[in-house]
Order: sequence, then C-alpha cells, then structure tokens
Amino acid sequence: MQRTVFFISDSTGITAETIGNSILAQFEGVQFDKHRLPFTDSAHKAEAAALRIKTNYAQSGQRPIVVNTMAERALCDIVAASGALMLDVFAPFIGPLEEELATKRSGAVNRSHGMVDYAKYEARINATNYALSHDDGMDVDYSQADLILVGVSRSGKTPTCLYMALHYGVSAANYPLTDEDLEKLELPVRLRPYRDRLFGLTIDPQRLAQIREQRRAGSRYATLKQCRWELEQADRLMRQAGIPSLNTTHVSIEEIASKIFDRFGIERTMF
Amino acid sequence: MQRTVFFISDSTGITAETIGNSILAQFEGVQFDKHRLPFTDSAHKAEAAALRIKTNYAQSGQRPIVVNTMAERALCDIVAASGALMLDVFAPFIGPLEEELATKRSGAVNRSHGMVDYAKYEARINATNYALSHDDGMDVDYSQADLILVGVSRSGKTPTCLYMALHYGVSAANYPLTDEDLEKLELPVRLRPYRDRLFGLTIDPQRLAQIREQRRAGSRYATLKQCRWELEQADRLMRQAGIPSLNTTHVSIEEIASKIFDRFGIERTMF
Repeated sequence: MQRTVFFISDSTGITAETIGNSILAQFEGVQFDKHRLPFTDSAHKAEAAALRIKTNYAQSGQRPIVVNTMAERALCDIVAASGALMLDVFAPFIGPLEEELATKRSGAVNRSHGMVDYAKYEARINATNYALSHDDGMDVDYSQADLILVGVSRSGKTPTCLYMALHYGVSAANYPLTDEDLEKLELPVRLRPYRDRLFGLTIDPQRLAQIREQRRAGSRYATLKQCRWELEQADRLMRQAGIPSLNTTHVSIEEIASKIFDRFGIERTMF
Repeated sequence: MQRTVFFISDSTGITAETIGNSILAQFEGVQFDKHRLPFTDSAHKAEAAALRIKTNYAQSGQRPIVVNTMAERALCDIVAASGALMLDVFAPFIGPLEEELATKRSGAVNRSHGMVDYAKYEARINATNYALSHDDGMDVDYSQADLILVGVSRSGKTPTCLYMALHYGVSAANYPLTDEDLEKLELPVRLRPYRDRLFGLTIDPQRLAQIREQRRAGSRYATLKQCRWELEQADRLMRQAGIPSLNTTHVSIEEIASKIFDRFGIERTMF
C-alpha cells in the first residue's frame, strides 16, 4: 500500500516534517511518498499546492495526507478543499495552552525556525567551528571541550560532533585512536587530564569494513581483519580507562547525540 | 510570566522538542524554562520524571507543561499523575490515520529517529564528508556538487553546507570570495561551468563586522569599512553573474537551507 504525503508550512516545514515522519513511522505496512511544500504563505501558493494535491488524488485514486503547520485559517481552507486528509499539527494544542496560560496565542507560528536569536546563533556557529578545528586529534588543545569523542577511524565521531554543535551548541572535540594507541593500549597523554569528558564510539566490525571499503576500496584499512583488531583493542582500551561507550551500528546520529547527553547529564535543549 | 516545560519521550525526544518549541513560540509573552527527559522508557524512569515534575509544581506553584511522545499508555499515566498539563503529541493524529489507512498503528513510536536506514545514513555521511572537503574553495573540483554557496568570509556558508549535508544528504560545496575576486568583479574561472548551481549568501555589514570582531578582534578584516566594501562588491558580482542570493542576517540556518532548496526546486525530505 502506498500513500502520498504532503508536508505543508508557511515557513520551513521542519516541524511538519519532524512530527509527520514520527507519526507515519508508526504505520509500518504503508509506503509513504513524501513531498515538502514549504513557504506556502499566500493564497496564490496555497491554491497551487491544493491543485497539486488534487491532481495527485485524481491520478492515484488514493486520498493524499497533508501534515499542516500553516497558521492562517484561510490558507488551510484552500488546501483542505483539495479533499486530502488534513492533519493540523498545532490545532489540538493551542486551545489547552491558551486556557492554561490564560493568554491568546500571538499567531507567530513557526517562529522557532524562522527567527534568529543572535546569542544562540553564535553558540551554534562557535561550537561548529570548534568541532571543525578539533576534528583530527592532531595538535589539539582540549581544555575548552564540553566532551571528547574517542574511537577508531569511521566510527561516526565527526558527524556526531557536528550535529551536537549545530543543534545544541555543544563544543565536542574528537580523537581518532591511532594504531600506536591501540598497540600500547594506553590512553594518549593529551587526553588524560580530560578523562571525565571522554566518550567512546564503537561499531560492528562488519559494518565498519563496509564503510571503509566505500572509502578506500581494497585497502588493508578496510579489511574485516584490520577492523576487528582495531575495534577489539579500542574496546579493551576504553574498558581499562573507564570510558563509557556506545555501539553506533544501529543508531542514528540524533540518537547517539541524545544518549551521550544523557550520559553526561547535559540537559541543553535544541536550538 | 514563567512556566516550566518538560519534553518527555521514550526515545531521543527530538520530535517532542521540535513541535513543543513551535507551539510555545506562539505564546510570546511567556518565558518557558525548558527541560528534556529523553529515554523515559520504563515505569521506574517515568516515576522519577513524575517526581521531578511534581516537585517543580510544588516549588513554583505553577502547573508544569509536559510535551509527551511516550508511546506506552501506562508510562503516560504515571507522568500525568504529577498533575502537569499533558500535551500528547501523537494522540490527536493516530485515530484519523488509522481510519484513513484502515490499519492499526504498529506502536513503533519515534522510529524516525531511532532506526537506521544504512543507505540514508551513508548519504548523510558522504554529503557531510563532501561538505568538509569542499569547504575552503582551494583546489576543489565542483563537478559532484549539488550546489555551491558563494559569499564573503563569515557569511554563513560553512554551517549551512554542513546542515544541508547532515539533514538532507545534499552535497554542498562552498566558495569564499577572495579580495582578488571582489576587486576584479569576476566570477572565478573554476566556478563558471557550474553557474546554475551557485547560490550567494549575503549579510548586513554591521552584523558581519560583529561576527568577525569576535573572531579576530581589532583586525582590518573586522572593520565596518572592510565588511561594507566586501559586501558591496560581492553584491555587484552576484548581480552581474546572475547568482540568486539571500541575506542571512535575520534568518536561521534551517530557514536558509529551506529557501535554497526552494530556489533550486530540491524537494528532498529530511533524514
């Protein structure tokens, strides 16, 4: 079974997409063909969207699903006239909140992604620059790091650091364990003062070999044997040094970041 | 007026936080003190959360607000017993969807952030690596770029490229306009074959000077005069070369990315 879904918004559509994906993932038997219609903020654009949805309905014979975060009632009505199933993301929550807070909403929907708070923006950018300049483990001063990810090459350290920086303003450095570290089974001297900020990433050897093979096909670096050795040594080193770790094989970047924050008691909210 | 908000989830809490922030932003007069309670996936953890919420209620005298994406009814009940206003993110949408799709939800809530699709993961990682290795404009081959961001130093190119890569798997390169480019008012030779993939980022000179001052205090690079000159020349160059552009001063990274995708007709959905 396949259904077409439109994420429609008068702004970026990120909220519509995030909640839409979470809801749709709960219907495992259905294939969803997803489309974004961001910046639908005028009658003209709403009519174009409605036409597109209506055409899809006529061609597929299946009622499309619309996940909607547009604020203006008039625009919602235009889109609803397409005959789609309308899921209004905000509607169910505004009433209870208005009552609880004894105040009317100000109508500035999607502000969270559309407005810039300079202080927060700077925290994101500074943390991103931090992650970029503390990425390779070479000649790096870790004293300013909120945390330091440790692991073998291609275990997911860099994207995790960048994600934590971009979305949470967390300054995360990363240290790739070298063959020398792995042979000696010793925590590099430079990391020792920051033991309580270290977190290890591990991964299944088969998966690591697959990732490395994509990057350097046919290399020793990508052999299962080499991957297995590195991971076993890394595991041993982390256990000896008392570094908490997470196997990232079946875990998304978002979930890795959340679990690390959880472990360190970092409660920072998203930007 | 201040209210405490808890984002509670049996997984990362990203969906709860995203929709929660969007809803709360619509109540401009209220200050929200936000807390995350991710991975609340057992009765034990739900009880700990409920205690914390209840304590907050008793101490503040204000009813806390809970934005909830936990799946299990029993866990929701435990938290609801704290007396907080419960906003259940999924509840309003499951019924209409079950009816429309004539199928019951499978209960795998928050799958969207908790499950790894290797192909998508690789697309994210490959695009992130692409962005990292095509970031400085030096000696770079642009033939594989989905798009190329052009602008003066510190106009927001790097974080935007990283965001588009991490969340959409879009391979975005970036080219920082040099003084030589700006003096000659000519598109660099290497960019010319890719004219239809170029997008310019601009920024207000005051804001740029502020950002640069943070980075290199007291430098000529950070003076308002230098920023103004660079931005004027960059504007001229982009207009002459027919490069679309966006002023990023009051725009979040998310919105910059969405607007660029919109301009290029890129309809890719988030990972």
